[in-house]
Amino acid sequence: MNIRKALITAANPRQRTLPLQTLVDRNGETKSALQIILEEAASAGIEEFCVIVCPGDETAYAEASGALRTRVRFIPQATPRGYGHAVLCGREFIGDESFLHLVGDHLHVASGAIGCARQILTVAAAENAPVSAVQPTRESLLTAYGTIGGRLVGGDRPLYQIETVMEKPTPTIAEQQLIVPGLRAGFYLCFFGLHVLDREIFALLEEQQAAAAGKNFGLTPALHALAARRRYLALSVAGRRYDIGAPYGLLFAQLALSLAGRDRDRVLTQLVELLALRAD
Amino acid sequence: MNIRKALITAANPRQRTLPLQTLVDRNGETKSALQIILEEAASAGIEEFCVIVCPGDETAYAEASGALRTRVRFIPQATPRGYGHAVLCGREFIGDESFLHLVGDHLHVASGAIGCARQILTVAAAENAPVSAVQPTRESLLTAYGTIGGRLVGGDRPLYQIETVMEKPTPTIAEQQLIVPGLRAGFYLCFFGLHVLDREIFALLEEQQAAAAGKNFGLTPALHALAARRRYLALSVAGRRYDIGAPYGLLFAQLALSLAGRDRDRVLTQLVELLALRAD
Repeated sequence: MNIRKALITAANPRQRTLPLQTLVDRNGETKSALQIILEEAASAGIEEFCVIVCPGDETAYAEASGALRTRVRFIPQATPRGYGHAVLCGREFIGDESFLHLVGDHLHVASGAIGCARQILTVAAAENAPVSAVQPTRESLLTAYGTIGGRLVGGDRPLYQIETVMEKPTPTIAEQQLIVPGLRAGFYLCFFGLHVLDREIFALLEEQQAAAAGKNFGLTPALHALAARRRYLALSVAGRRYDIGAPYGLLFAQLALSLAGRDRDRVLTQLVELLALRAD
Repeated sequence: MNIRKALITAANPRQRTLPLQTLVDRNGETKSALQIILEEAASAGIEEFCVIVCPGDETAYAEASGALRTRVRFIPQATPRGYGHAVLCGREFIGDESFLHLVGDHLHVASGAIGCARQILTVAAAENAPVSAVQPTRESLLTAYGTIGGRLVGGDRPLYQIETVMEKPTPTIAEQQLIVPGLRAGFYLCFFGLHVLDREIFALLEEQQAAAAGKNFGLTPALHALAARRRYLALSVAGRRYDIGAPYGLLFAQLALSLAGRDRDRVLTQLVELLALRAD
């Protein structure tokens, strides 16, 4: 499985300016959030990118793409019909290949030297199956994420076979249906905003679209259907996701990048100075 | 002196996206940097705003202006001829009135309940003179700021009569010409990005423009000339400036806003969690 293409969704009308936000990456370079996302994918071997955008955002996003700009195609989602529909807008660009899917409102900070995108691409190639990255997530945060249920696959990696996918479950439903043995109590496996998928997802999304009869539709029901049809895995990646669309999301994404990067000491020093200032 | 108008410069071609950056203000509301700047001025009594922008940025900036949008006029700086020229672009809008001048790349966080803009407007009205806000600034940071020399005026406020204004002085020159009695050793009074000025500054800028013969010109020489002609004051405001164009400037502006605001405890808690995470 040689994955060359990435599909990035950034068409949520309420989040149009998020990928344009400016951050300093782990190397101390100032970049847009979009550029950081594109570069994570590129460093994992992706060669061609499509970004699903709100109509009219093509120019601003192209300007925010940095050196990869010439390898990015921007596809407008003509009507805002939900996340599932946005992914479906990339069908023609992806064609029959397997692909990496990232969301335009999440940044990832790997714990070690291997980026999060590369981690799931490696597992997808080794297992020859679709893989979603997940992160053990506190029960109180379930209302923000797609959540999986499943069972640990043998081996030395935190790899799970997915049995159920639910969007933003209540704690009660999660406790009944989504407990994964081996996790800390009160934690569930929630999506990370990073998936390796193939053309089967488009067929499932078309079914969702037909059933939605003109209404919005998400990606989660199609992923749930995928788990019923074939071996579909979840990898608990070594790293953390930062939802930059959440309150203070940009702040903590930036802090996490800085503290994992070249300027760790400098940022920690300024942070301590700022905290001291308030005690005046 | 009833000040109703504000002139905001945001036409630096290298900083076009800065005022569009998203932050969470002290009240926990998500806003653009531009909106936070406009609202600081509005809360100090400003009714009409002009923002000097790069040609083409009018629409994006208008969309980022929030509820004050109808009171803002955007004036393009047709050629990038420097900060002094940008201020001069607002001459017609300001007319014969005194005005508040803010820069589009600085956010201010007051120490107490009274905003920084209101602090200097109050002093300008009481003293009937132009006033620049300043902040005692470490010698190592002089290369980033306009710096004043002067002497403490009597009274209960940290108010100075300005004798000299220099742009980004070297530490040697600062030590020779800009030491202000009463400050901590190694500290100088540097601009805060907040001034109350009147039409005289435009006359002085016109002189600078004529002398520049087509080259770029800054605001500092005109302010230096102003100090030679009349009583021109500096107020060390109760608050801090955050240059959002500096490396990690957005990060620390956001942290300062959060720690001075409604969500202080929540942000501190997340901060501690993030710092603990790195110790894994």
